[in-house]
Amino acid sequence: MTTFAIGVDLGGTNLRIAAVDSTGKTLEKITTSTEVARGRDQVIDEMCAAIQKIVVKQSGAGELAGIGIGVPGIIEMQTGMLHESPNLPGWHNYPVRDEIERRLQTAVVLENDANAAALGEKWLGAAARVDDMCMFTLGTGVGGGVVMQGKIWHGMTGMAGELGHINVEPEGHPCNCGSRGCLEQYASATAVKRMAQEAILSGQASQMARVFKEDVEFNSKMIFDLAMQGDASARAIFERVGKALGTVIADMVNIFNFPMYVVGGGVASAWDAFAPSMLATIGRNSFVYRNTAPYENAPAGTAGGTSITRALLGSDAGLIGAARLPMIAGKANAPEAELKRA
Amino acid sequence: MTTFAIGVDLGGTNLRIAAVDSTGKTLEKITTSTEVARGRDQVIDEMCAAIQKIVVKQSGAGELAGIGIGVPGIIEMQTGMLHESPNLPGWHNYPVRDEIERRLQTAVVLENDANAAALGEKWLGAAARVDDMCMFTLGTGVGGGVVMQGKIWHGMTGMAGELGHINVEPEGHPCNCGSRGCLEQYASATAVKRMAQEAILSGQASQMARVFKEDVEFNSKMIFDLAMQGDASARAIFERVGKALGTVIADMVNIFNFPMYVVGGGVASAWDAFAPSMLATIGRNSFVYRNTAPYENAPAGTAGGTSITRALLGSDAGLIGAARLPMIAGKANAPEAELKRA
Repeated sequence: MTTFAIGVDLGGTNLRIAAVDSTGKTLEKITTSTEVARGRDQVIDEMCAAIQKIVVKQSGAGELAGIGIGVPGIIEMQTGMLHESPNLPGWHNYPVRDEIERRLQTAVVLENDANAAALGEKWLGAAARVDDMCMFTLGTGVGGGVVMQGKIWHGMTGMAGELGHINVEPEGHPCNCGSRGCLEQYASATAVKRMAQEAILSGQASQMARVFKEDVEFNSKMIFDLAMQGDASARAIFERVGKALGTVIADMVNIFNFPMYVVGGGVASAWDAFAPSMLATIGRNSFVYRNTAPYENAPAGTAGGTSITRALLGSDAGLIGAARLPMIAGKANAPEAELKRA
Repeated sequence: MTTFAIGVDLGGTNLRIAAVDSTGKTLEKITTSTEVARGRDQVIDEMCAAIQKIVVKQSGAGELAGIGIGVPGIIEMQTGMLHESPNLPGWHNYPVRDEIERRLQTAVVLENDANAAALGEKWLGAAARVDDMCMFTLGTGVGGGVVMQGKIWHGMTGMAGELGHINVEPEGHPCNCGSRGCLEQYASATAVKRMAQEAILSGQASQMARVFKEDVEFNSKMIFDLAMQGDASARAIFERVGKALGTVIADMVNIFNFPMYVVGGGVASAWDAFAPSMLATIGRNSFVYRNTAPYENAPAGTAGGTSITRALLGSDAGLIGAARLPMIAGKANAPEAELKRA
């Protein structure tokens, strides 16, 4: 008999839940009406009720392996609490994992949402054929996840994989993290919009200015459309996205020599606009990239054996990865090392 | 009965050999008169003769576990050949490992010299109490080694850990690797000398100009001495070293969340001149550094649980690490993953 697990994507706005079996088949997937803004207790009540309903419905699919929850914030792996999460105020120092375990009487694993997305792409997505990879999630911010030998690398306190805060411009744009010139300031949807506004203010981006005036919901998708129509100012913005991302991926190739680096999240839809400058930068900056020998059955987009590729699971990566968490719990990389040190 | 191993440091100029037992005790250590410049065959002849002499002499110390050789270059882990090594011309595509194994009839492990130094510091040096660390070796170039769960991380083709080629200045000084603005261009002994020459040429470093004129052997040690005497131009150079190194260490902390980052190599002697700007940069750039909780018995120099510290083994780190290689052979991280993929 197979087992199945529940994956939860506790996003900044909505709550999504899926039941996935151990072969990777999604049995059920729902987006609840729960608005995360309505507060912690209501979210937990509704989440637990929805999970219980799905578990009962899917009980024919085998034994429940547990529940994995992807959360936008930093998790204290040992206590199962949130360290900080701007999108989930009121959750700090609350025993999230223990409370849900108590209510549902089953194992719960919390994970940073970008780590969960990396694990999802590694399990069923772009990186299914490799053991070692890292993923960049280009959304409102830039999240990262490092998977080594099939497991998320957590580091000493669960804060590893903060790839959005790698420095790309020594004295660049200030970042919420306290530094300047982080990748997040050049490759997130927020950064794309900011760079567009800067271009409009400079008076040298008339087409963007027109679109901005016509549509109050001005977003990075519109800037991408302009870029694909050939607008020079919009193209320049995505070239900057690609250069920043390429600089960081080149660093990662030099550090890890992994076979695969995956780019996902909403901004990854603009791949055609930023990939050329990204790949050119990686090629210039990383001699490891230029020198790595191809491996068997290398996928399309592979250059020299190191594959830089788009994510395949779209917005489901985090949900799928969350469901994977309880299936491989207890086998994580860093907590073992931590226990040894303790 | 204990075992012992032979460590070899095949440097750019000389050949050093040590016998080290499994408890970490150095039984014997020699610097041979072999000049590496005299060519591959003579080096291998003399190395093998010297090793055999030591093995016979130390045979009372137990069984020989094998021979580890640290080499300045990139090793193809599977074939035991050198991929490229500017300091060892003529060694490329020569079956170094197999040839020495054939002659000495014992297991030989080749390793990049910076990786061997990291392993040495992890075994008996600054990082003996942690499982996860990385080390920067600031010498003629900047080498790096990443140790995870006690083993060197090699990556897909053995090229991981090229920390000297992480980008710190998007359009900075050209690097031999083909990129621009690599760490190596700001934190190696070569870079310190270049920056001093730039300062002298600018006409704004009169004290350095005088020292340079007086001594044809003008080197980074002299610039360090000037910095410690308060010379502003010399201090500015080491501040730049510290800023570049701090930028990269901050990136590493955000990526790995390791408990320890070790700085070694000749330029690390100038610690007092570059550490203040290095630590200030790490503090500004890495929120993971600022937020990591202290762990038990954290050593001096620890800030927030993440320790940035000087290497302890000096120029012996690579030799000690090389001797460690055969003791832990077959337990390396990446080759296992590679076999799985093959």
